Amino acid sequence: MRELRKDPVLNRWVIISSERAARPMDAFHVAPENVDSYCPFCEGEESATPPEIYASRRPGARPNGPGWSIRVVPNKYPALSGASRERANPTPELMVSSPALAEVSPELAQIGPVSDGVIDIFHKMDGVGHHEVFIETPDHSQTLHTMDKSQAAVIFHTLKARLLEIRKDPAMACAQFFKNHGRESGASLAHSHSQLIAMPVVSRTLGEELAGAAHHRIKTGECVYCRILRREGDSGERLIAARDGIAALAPFASRFPYEMMIMPMGHSSGFEDSSAKIIDALASMLVDLLGALAQMFNNPPYNLVLHTAPFAPGHEEAYHWHLEIIPVMARAAGFEWGSGFHINSVPPEDAADRMRKALGNE
Amino acid sequence: MRELRKDPVLNRWVIISSERAARPMDAFHVAPENVDSYCPFCEGEESATPPEIYASRRPGARPNGPGWSIRVVPNKYPALSGASRERANPTPELMVSSPALAEVSPELAQIGPVSDGVIDIFHKMDGVGHHEVFIETPDHSQTLHTMDKSQAAVIFHTLKARLLEIRKDPAMACAQFFKNHGRESGASLAHSHSQLIAMPVVSRTLGEELAGAAHHRIKTGECVYCRILRREGDSGERLIAARDGIAALAPFASRFPYEMMIMPMGHSSGFEDSSAKIIDALASMLVDLLGALAQMFNNPPYNLVLHTAPFAPGHEEAYHWHLEIIPVMARAAGFEWGSGFHINSVPPEDAADRMRKALGNE
Repeated sequence: MRELRKDPVLNRWVIISSERAARPMDAFHVAPENVDSYCPFCEGEESATPPEIYASRRPGARPNGPGWSIRVVPNKYPALSGASRERANPTPELMVSSPALAEVSPELAQIGPVSDGVIDIFHKMDGVGHHEVFIETPDHSQTLHTMDKSQAAVIFHTLKARLLEIRKDPAMACAQFFKNHGRESGASLAHSHSQLIAMPVVSRTLGEELAGAAHHRIKTGECVYCRILRREGDSGERLIAARDGIAALAPFASRFPYEMMIMPMGHSSGFEDSSAKIIDALASMLVDLLGALAQMFNNPPYNLVLHTAPFAPGHEEAYHWHLEIIPVMARAAGFEWGSGFHINSVPPEDAADRMRKALGNE
Repeated sequence: MRELRKDPVLNRWVIISSERAARPMDAFHVAPENVDSYCPFCEGEESATPPEIYASRRPGARPNGPGWSIRVVPNKYPALSGASRERANPTPELMVSSPALAEVSPELAQIGPVSDGVIDIFHKMDGVGHHEVFIETPDHSQTLHTMDKSQAAVIFHTLKARLLEIRKDPAMACAQFFKNHGRESGASLAHSHSQLIAMPVVSRTLGEELAGAAHHRIKTGECVYCRILRREGDSGERLIAARDGIAALAPFASRFPYEMMIMPMGHSSGFEDSSAKIIDALASMLVDLLGALAQMFNNPPYNLVLHTAPFAPGHEEAYHWHLEIIPVMARAAGFEWGSGFHINSVPPEDAADRMRKALGNE
């Protein structure tokens, strides 16, 4: 198979080229952890992290001590921080005018004088936001696909609680929840954890999804994600599993081998408005999918990313939250960075077929 | 420093967070090559590749034999192929209707009947295109920053020739030239090479750049890239070097540490329309920048990506070709894949300062 497919929501084409699967490639595996080595996320090492923002603890256990099932702490190396209740307005860069570097750019000086600026081209704003780390379990030997499903559910119930809290901050536009599993996925610590970054602007991808979803709704009167669910449910060829209000599928224009998308079957724009029942079903589905993936490919690294509505109202009808699983089986290369397109050597129909078999659904 | 910066052309924000530089990180280095091991790209192994499309050879040397300074061959595992002179029209997917997988999706079946489709959501087209490999040198021990500048120039003169040829194919909308140096950059073979993929649609990134550039031209009457050059030339703080009609700078909203952008100082939309003098100057600048980078960071992997106008006319005034150097010093992680934003721990002003010093320009 060699074809171009367009994402149903975004202006993003993917090249599906199964011939490229024959190419010599590295295979990535997340090695078993040495439980004896020092880890700042383990129970008993609470003082190694900044004081916790949120935790679930045994009755009577004290904050920032042992006895927890999940801890949320500020990232020690935050990408954004210092969010306040004052809105952070974008301000044009205050350029410090300096003499032209004639030694470096004699020719640039000849191009012409600096325009006084009809519109400014350089915009920046303070890096305010929240950057939180979810330490998902006190047990260093566990990870998302090996832990009890009830423990996995605790992570997503905690996420709901944190999003409900953060969205009270009027300076925040949206939040990105993600997990990096394994070194090749970008994780710098092995102990199972995920992260939440709240930002003062709507992210690029979310903005594009909102635009695509709004466009579809104006044209057809319906949510494009609900439509995808119906189409995939009818054909079945890319559907992996569906139960308890949660569906998992291999996206039509999957960018990565074994990319998966998990969605509530009922329309819902903001993850934090989900019921406890949906959150439990999401966690259960996720553990099953990641467990099957780990078995099929000997514990590959992966990224997990949540796409959920921005905090400002107005997207309830057109948008639909979803969670993406991105197994790390190949490295993004110059083509991807240059073009914004992706080359995927595994057709999503084949990926869905293998996932269904691994889950015992076929 | 912790701030958000918006790309002057794209709707893409970058988080510049120098505090994150303190985080424990892997450092990547491209190891010296074992010249004795078998390599299908070496001189004398011409039969290991598909027959060449283009080559520069000694007078009298026969095609597909030794005696060349550069060879262009079809990629053995092409992402796209079989481009013809007939335009490949996008066609809605022909869905094979299959019975609903009731075992897998009893609930999906209850969501509702499949709409007959006001607009279709799944679009695909044949994977026609060109996927070529540029074997940049017969010498396995050389790479772009160690080879003679005249040999580096041969690569870009060859690229011009190939683009002029490929743009005659009316099915092709644009082409993406890129180079992956080192395993962590996505390279699967060590012998110095680059690639060219011609596509029947305009790439996502190029489409966004064209829109951003057109917007700026409508508002101000000028090319946004020319404006960037003037602004950077005036302030000097992100300018790295400028000579012989070519400028190099660290972009205002750099996504990656030591990201660099190389541009012709004179307005020019399509790389393939560049003069021999500009191409020689580009190659010379590139070799100097990559050489300095290799010395500063012990030969890090990198990606090189060319951004050049699509083949159809209409973008001559607003667009301006440029070449990006993306050193691979960190891995893209869940945050980048989820948000489309980037976190960069090295402010571009610092990167430009260090590059200028390394080049002896300060």
